Amino acid sequence: VLLKDIASRLQLVVEGDGDAEITGCAPIDEAGPKDLTFVGNPRYARLLDASRAGAVILAPGTSRAVGNVLRAASPQVAFAAALALFDTRPAVRAGIHPTAVIDDSATIGADCHVGAYVVVGEGVTLGDCSVLYPHVTIYPGATIGPRFVAHAGAVVREGAVIGSDVVLQPGAVIGADGFGFLPNPGGLPQAVPQIGTVEIGDHAEIGANTTVDRAAVGATRIGRGVKLDNLVQIAHGCQVGEGSLLAAQVGVAGSSRIGKNVLAGGQAGITGHASVGDGAQIAAQGGVTGDIPSGAVVAGMPAIDIKLWRRCMVALGRLPEILVRLRAVERRLAGKDENRR
Amino acid sequence: VLLKDIASRLQLVVEGDGDAEITGCAPIDEAGPKDLTFVGNPRYARLLDASRAGAVILAPGTSRAVGNVLRAASPQVAFAAALALFDTRPAVRAGIHPTAVIDDSATIGADCHVGAYVVVGEGVTLGDCSVLYPHVTIYPGATIGPRFVAHAGAVVREGAVIGSDVVLQPGAVIGADGFGFLPNPGGLPQAVPQIGTVEIGDHAEIGANTTVDRAAVGATRIGRGVKLDNLVQIAHGCQVGEGSLLAAQVGVAGSSRIGKNVLAGGQAGITGHASVGDGAQIAAQGGVTGDIPSGAVVAGMPAIDIKLWRRCMVALGRLPEILVRLRAVERRLAGKDENRR
Amino acid sequence: VLLKDIASRLQLVVEGDGDAEITGCAPIDEAGPKDLTFVGNPRYARLLDASRAGAVILAPGTSRAVGNVLRAASPQVAFAAALALFDTRPAVRAGIHPTAVIDDSATIGADCHVGAYVVVGEGVTLGDCSVLYPHVTIYPGATIGPRFVAHAGAVVREGAVIGSDVVLQPGAVIGADGFGFLPNPGGLPQAVPQIGTVEIGDHAEIGANTTVDRAAVGATRIGRGVKLDNLVQIAHGCQVGEGSLLAAQVGVAGSSRIGKNVLAGGQAGITGHASVGDGAQIAAQGGVTGDIPSGAVVAGMPAIDIKLWRRCMVALGRLPEILVRLRAVERRLAGKDENRR
Repeated sequence: VLLKDIASRLQLVVEGDGDAEITGCAPIDEAGPKDLTFVGNPRYARLLDASRAGAVILAPGTSRAVGNVLRAASPQVAFAAALALFDTRPAVRAGIHPTAVIDDSATIGADCHVGAYVVVGEGVTLGDCSVLYPHVTIYPGATIGPRFVAHAGAVVREGAVIGSDVVLQPGAVIGADGFGFLPNPGGLPQAVPQIGTVEIGDHAEIGANTTVDRAAVGATRIGRGVKLDNLVQIAHGCQVGEGSLLAAQVGVAGSSRIGKNVLAGGQAGITGHASVGDGAQIAAQGGVTGDIPSGAVVAGMPAIDIKLWRRCMVALGRLPEILVRLRAVERRLAGKDENRR
Repeated sequence: VLLKDIASRLQLVVEGDGDAEITGCAPIDEAGPKDLTFVGNPRYARLLDASRAGAVILAPGTSRAVGNVLRAASPQVAFAAALALFDTRPAVRAGIHPTAVIDDSATIGADCHVGAYVVVGEGVTLGDCSVLYPHVTIYPGATIGPRFVAHAGAVVREGAVIGSDVVLQPGAVIGADGFGFLPNPGGLPQAVPQIGTVEIGDHAEIGANTTVDRAAVGATRIGRGVKLDNLVQIAHGCQVGEGSLLAAQVGVAGSSRIGKNVLAGGQAGITGHASVGDGAQIAAQGGVTGDIPSGAVVAGMPAIDIKLWRRCMVALGRLPEILVRLRAVERRLAGKDENRR
Repeated sequence: VLLKDIASRLQLVVEGDGDAEITGCAPIDEAGPKDLTFVGNPRYARLLDASRAGAVILAPGTSRAVGNVLRAASPQVAFAAALALFDTRPAVRAGIHPTAVIDDSATIGADCHVGAYVVVGEGVTLGDCSVLYPHVTIYPGATIGPRFVAHAGAVVREGAVIGSDVVLQPGAVIGADGFGFLPNPGGLPQAVPQIGTVEIGDHAEIGANTTVDRAAVGATRIGRGVKLDNLVQIAHGCQVGEGSLLAAQVGVAGSSRIGKNVLAGGQAGITGHASVGDGAQIAAQGGVTGDIPSGAVVAGMPAIDIKLWRRCMVALGRLPEILVRLRAVERRLAGKDENRR
């Protein structure tokens, strides 16, 4: 592909040789003369001079001494669009593999791909143009919208309700029984039947080996456009609002309500029965122990305002020194008392 | 179902209209006129007045201005029993799916359900009335008691020994090789053969995508009635005592011994070769770095007594202020010295 | 087996009865008169006197009052070798199960074992003597070296490149789409196509239900001999250097570079775009928030030098007391001012 053709499809301006040939995309430090790359995060601008990239997508104000540039308001957005142009991964073809076990009462939409050894239970409805990779299991009674993609080994438990354009990465588990046990003094903990369900909104994506439990009653709800990274745990009865992004290994305990457009860093945890307001941000490994208002930005365990947390952490690193200084002050005060006597 | 019939089956007293019709269970803020709900956690009592629920299970001393009440010593226990009455999830039928691959030397008990594409290895014994959902793999030599339930994609590795009434949620892995590698200066780490096994006691439940590793020698042991939530890691050679409950994403490093009735909050971690006494409680995200006595309640990393931890955390939030005050004290002391000269 | 024969195969010296019969290996506190055990960690030496073990592998300088001893420079290394002698777990036989679905264009090496319901996609190359346990899925275009072992339910996504002698424990997922979403003010987050791949070096081992994401561009790279424990998350574009060991539930955010021979304790986290130097060590639950030099040993969140961290944690436990003492100092200073007036 010629650089000028990429530029035209992405509606960007070429600075340099539009006839340069580009055959792929690469990170800035690995890109060769036929690769397109970008600088989004300013910390990578220092790599510009050494880069052999055939072309670099740059924001206004960033310059490249030698070589071609595509100029974009947001290099990240433009690069994402370029990646789509170069996505050569094999597409799946519509069709149902002869080994798929599909219950007679299930409804499979038009133009679906159902892979080898997929199992679809009684009464399931699967929307048009969906893709089930090998070894996916859909339990009875699940209702799934169009353009669903479930990667190998993903599991959808009984009665789950899944919207349109939802993606499950490999090994994701939707609707396992919630962790509900009653303490039983003198005996073993007793299981609470988890008779509720899970509802997943349109355009949600669920990461590899992530688990979203079914509710004890009612539904665990994952909102439209929510993105859960790998190995995330969403406990029974939680609600995650539209557009929220939860990074890998985040855990949300039972019955909590996460607002819209919330960001949670990796390994963050949110206690049960908590409410996290719209647009709140939780730093990686943060531990939310109660309600968090909209727009709050928190860190630490227990999670507090991130600016205060940063100051506390700086001070914490000086705590041994503080102790020494406190002792010195005490000694001097004691000395004064001595002197006075 | 009439409310009075539910009351009679749960042995509770109706306050109000026993002839009210109840068709399901729901959370208090979603329950409609035909739903039964409950208030266990007092923080939800504030929702009572606005609730449209057909009936509410309440503890003595809690009152509802308008509407029906079932009175119970423990609303949670009563509601759990009610949930069982309304569990309409499809039951599985005994039978072995024609696609199941069962080794000739395996013994499958009476009245089992073996789903599509299940694989059962050489010499496996599976107890009566067990249920293997699709894509379960039982490696050779595993011995499993009656009423075992393994959800889709669960894996039981070679030689594991599993008691009666054990449940594996989807994707649980029992008996993977422990993480045993010897450092090898100048070369790659060398694997230590993990020739031990895993033993799981009666009535244990293992969460979705949770991993319980086999021991290097001897056995990793999960006690009777232990409940592991999703994405929990139990390393090789650990022992978890009867009735302990470990919440999601808890990790226990190798050779540790967790006592009976221990509670661990989400994302808590326990170091290797540690001993945690009976009835100990570890708060969410707590990091246990050594032995913990019976009945201890700990939090933080490193985990300390939770009351001390709470006071420390309050003080930590004031650390920047403490630093300012210390500086002021030092300055005043220096000023005094100045004055004296 | 006679003890003297074990000694001869492990090239160790017997102290005691070389004709003693040994039939297995066991932990020191469970070993019986026909078991071999060892004391590596000095904290277990206290168990020596009570041990009924038929023989104990001991380091020079450790003595046993009664019973047989094998003397070894490194008891752990010698015991690992002994474990291999007693590994009686069933070996798999070469052969392709009739239910395996292997694309016509795939190349399966000599002497491979391909288990029931394995799915191998278009254009896959699998090296000689590999073992695919049931329900493994290899997506199209993956290239895999010899002596590969993939346990039940492991998934290798499209185009992944895997070296020789690699092991995947059950449920491991290699090459799921990275977590790349662009914020989209006023709309839903937009997925960034993840068109890169994953490369895994020779002799790497990947734990149960661990996830290693494909890169957006270029490759996520796991070096030779890297060992990832269970439930680890390696995000897109990361590089993990040769011989590094990452314990269970460790998470590494996108584009980070972990050096060679790095050790990370359980549940440790490493932020995105960070660089961790060769030989660095990160304590369990540590949170690395930036670059770490070679050889650094860090703990805490944010992770700092472990010795400083330990002193800070001791001081933190005294923080309530510090606050009291500071108040006392302030009061005395105020008193002095009073006196002076």
